[in-house]
Amino acid sequence: LNYRQVTKRTISCLQSLIGDDNVLHDPDELIYYSGDENPAGISAKPDVVVTPQNTQQVSQVLTFANDHRIPVTFRGQGTGLSCGAVPLYGGIVLSFERMNRILEIDEDNLVAIVEPGVVLLTLREELARYGLFYPADPGERTSAIGGNVATNAGGMNGVKYGNTRQYIVGLEAVLASGAVLQLGGKTLKRSTGYELLHLVVGSEGTLAAITKVILRVMKEPQRVITLYVPFPNLTAAIATVPQIIREKITPTAIEFMEQELLLMVEQQVDQRMPHDGAAAYLIIRLDGDEETSLYKMGEAVADLCLARGAEDVLIAESREAQARIWDLRGRFYEVLKSTNILDTVDAVVPISQIAEYIRLGKQISKKYGLTIHGLGHAGDGNVHLMLLKDTLSDTAWSEKLPKTKQELHEAAVALGGTISGEHGIGFEKKKYLPLIASKDELAIMRNIKHVFDPNNILNPGKIFDI
Amino acid sequence: LNYRQVTKRTISCLQSLIGDDNVLHDPDELIYYSGDENPAGISAKPDVVVTPQNTQQVSQVLTFANDHRIPVTFRGQGTGLSCGAVPLYGGIVLSFERMNRILEIDEDNLVAIVEPGVVLLTLREELARYGLFYPADPGERTSAIGGNVATNAGGMNGVKYGNTRQYIVGLEAVLASGAVLQLGGKTLKRSTGYELLHLVVGSEGTLAAITKVILRVMKEPQRVITLYVPFPNLTAAIATVPQIIREKITPTAIEFMEQELLLMVEQQVDQRMPHDGAAAYLIIRLDGDEETSLYKMGEAVADLCLARGAEDVLIAESREAQARIWDLRGRFYEVLKSTNILDTVDAVVPISQIAEYIRLGKQISKKYGLTIHGLGHAGDGNVHLMLLKDTLSDTAWSEKLPKTKQELHEAAVALGGTISGEHGIGFEKKKYLPLIASKDELAIMRNIKHVFDPNNILNPGKIFDI
Repeated sequence: LNYRQVTKRTISCLQSLIGDDNVLHDPDELIYYSGDENPAGISAKPDVVVTPQNTQQVSQVLTFANDHRIPVTFRGQGTGLSCGAVPLYGGIVLSFERMNRILEIDEDNLVAIVEPGVVLLTLREELARYGLFYPADPGERTSAIGGNVATNAGGMNGVKYGNTRQYIVGLEAVLASGAVLQLGGKTLKRSTGYELLHLVVGSEGTLAAITKVILRVMKEPQRVITLYVPFPNLTAAIATVPQIIREKITPTAIEFMEQELLLMVEQQVDQRMPHDGAAAYLIIRLDGDEETSLYKMGEAVADLCLARGAEDVLIAESREAQARIWDLRGRFYEVLKSTNILDTVDAVVPISQIAEYIRLGKQISKKYGLTIHGLGHAGDGNVHLMLLKDTLSDTAWSEKLPKTKQELHEAAVALGGTISGEHGIGFEKKKYLPLIASKDELAIMRNIKHVFDPNNILNPGKIFDI
Repeated sequence: LNYRQVTKRTISCLQSLIGDDNVLHDPDELIYYSGDENPAGISAKPDVVVTPQNTQQVSQVLTFANDHRIPVTFRGQGTGLSCGAVPLYGGIVLSFERMNRILEIDEDNLVAIVEPGVVLLTLREELARYGLFYPADPGERTSAIGGNVATNAGGMNGVKYGNTRQYIVGLEAVLASGAVLQLGGKTLKRSTGYELLHLVVGSEGTLAAITKVILRVMKEPQRVITLYVPFPNLTAAIATVPQIIREKITPTAIEFMEQELLLMVEQQVDQRMPHDGAAAYLIIRLDGDEETSLYKMGEAVADLCLARGAEDVLIAESREAQARIWDLRGRFYEVLKSTNILDTVDAVVPISQIAEYIRLGKQISKKYGLTIHGLGHAGDGNVHLMLLKDTLSDTAWSEKLPKTKQELHEAAVALGGTISGEHGIGFEKKKYLPLIASKDELAIMRNIKHVFDPNNILNPGKIFDI
């Protein structure tokens, strides 16, 4: 890939284009923009960072970079897990940190218009003031909405509410050429040619910059309850999930965890959960507007769990009690990462295959002697496997890890699933993409990349190699 | 466009590829495959029709057509309104009438796998046997699901359930080259590169053949009620709609109609609606599982209507009473078309702008002296305007019609809306596409077309000109 070097002249050009304040080049500052939360700690230092404040400045930077063949990597909050924001080829990191305004909350049309740098938590809090709710719920609430769109971020609410894609009705996108596209709008229905919007969603910064997002929002559910259900073993817990779906009950979220992980996290955060003596747990969130029907749904789920051998069903009703459970659940990755060298798999399988996938995971874990903890979104088939280095030597880890991951991805695909539910392909999963995309499909993807970004300046080295 | 002629030799090649039974070339038979339901009656006779029975045969036909530069136009049930199935350049019509099997209804994963020729009504009936429900509800229930996918069909349920796109989780698609792509699958979450699936949805047969569809289905709502609400004038009726949305109530459907149209249809179908003396009507469908909360929602909607001047609120509860209302509503287009020369506009505007759009529509109607009836999906902003020739001379009609349509489309776009909500662009709306897609966006669309179909054999002349 034949990129031009960023020189002093490049930097002064950028400064004169968008202002000195919006161009960072102090080596100490650049380090902050080198990585994301990817478990392997892969990072690369940009040559310069720009923090444009509006669409026009984004367009100016891209036009300049395109003319000068300088790679550009977009960055929201750098909370991604797949190296999406890592500038593998150096060049420019374009950070959306200064484009973080909520532009409009439109109650008549139930949409919000936001800049890409808006942090999810901020959006949630602002919407709540209007009794509104943005359903996509990636675990990382400090993530920026632009990154959520770029990775089609998922999260716990996927069972009922799906991924980010479901809520994107409009985008402003800037092409590598600097051209600004207005895709979609405030209307929900549309049949007007090829949906470039849905091509940009999930494209991980390789097709266009996202400079504005129009989100569909909805009424905040009036009531939420959480069931905390200890099981004597993981198989019984997981086998309950398709039963719930088959009964056509739609919880908001169904998470599962095993005792070993729970105890590890409890110890780290110095907090204990009730009934922490069971081997496995389901945590089930239900929402609705009407108390009676919500509790009826809760009872039906509880009955299904008990019939499948649950040791108990604890119901958390207060906001605080529920927050305690979900906060603990939300800290698993962070705690594991702070105490272990680890890697993750973001596989998805059809709901009916979750139990089988976990069984295969344990089998693969044994085969390679590599500790694997299952964790995650049982309700939508998005199983996060945590692969721990534990006591393995560096050599053993670097030898076993790729083989284990290869087999785990192959197993997901063999069960009718896929290799990423919500983290994206990024850098590290590129080699597994051919497991689910045929040569013909990959060829189409590459050609589409060429249509949008003929000089391959946008986030090069991600999703696939050119 | 330099296509090769279909000759006797072409026909015998097709016969030897997929069997004599699957190749129709009798001139009388070909007429049936010339048109769709487009109001202008635009049609074009194919040179030959093929009715492949499986994906392999589709692939064989496309490979052959691509090698020989023969245009191919796909056809489901020919119920489209935008000439999608009209073979403008002759050549081959590929009809999916023999690929009409429901392959699987998977209750564990709440998905159905169907061939593209399955008729919507058949799918609904089959799903109902499992207590399942496919929410996208285009008015035309004899349409084929493949066509629904190709146009991202919408319908009355858009308010609550959205368009077809929301329910497509997997597609099998055949490229012009004959290559078969498997896009998506039974899983709901996915972040694995560019979403070609969403590019094929809504592409109106110009990018690929759709040979298999994996649909997300859901539990059939336990209860449905319909409110039939007469208003003293259209403005009052329409102004109620954003109020309902603003109160964060989500009906399944909100339709509106005016008395003049109602009386016209009543006369034609020889059936009378109660309270048919009002100037305008809202028809509102609500669904839910729980009787109490459903009726609470019904009361809230009724109160909002009455506060806005509704003359009465009639509630239909029995299946039959509701069916009578919706069947009548469903026959408007057919009745109008059988008694008038007409044209339609499928504009969408943000919900908050519906009243203004109708006002502008009436103004444009007056300006050109062309009768326009508004009708349609008030709840999602998808206003169908029916433009009637009435007593106009042929010359006046052909002079006024394009000007009126141009202004109606411009008005929708000016209000933040778009030019097609669910019918697609097809042939006749091509000239309006630049109203909503910039040159840069159109250039990207054209290049994507070239990536998928370099010889431009798939449904040429639709969406845009090459």
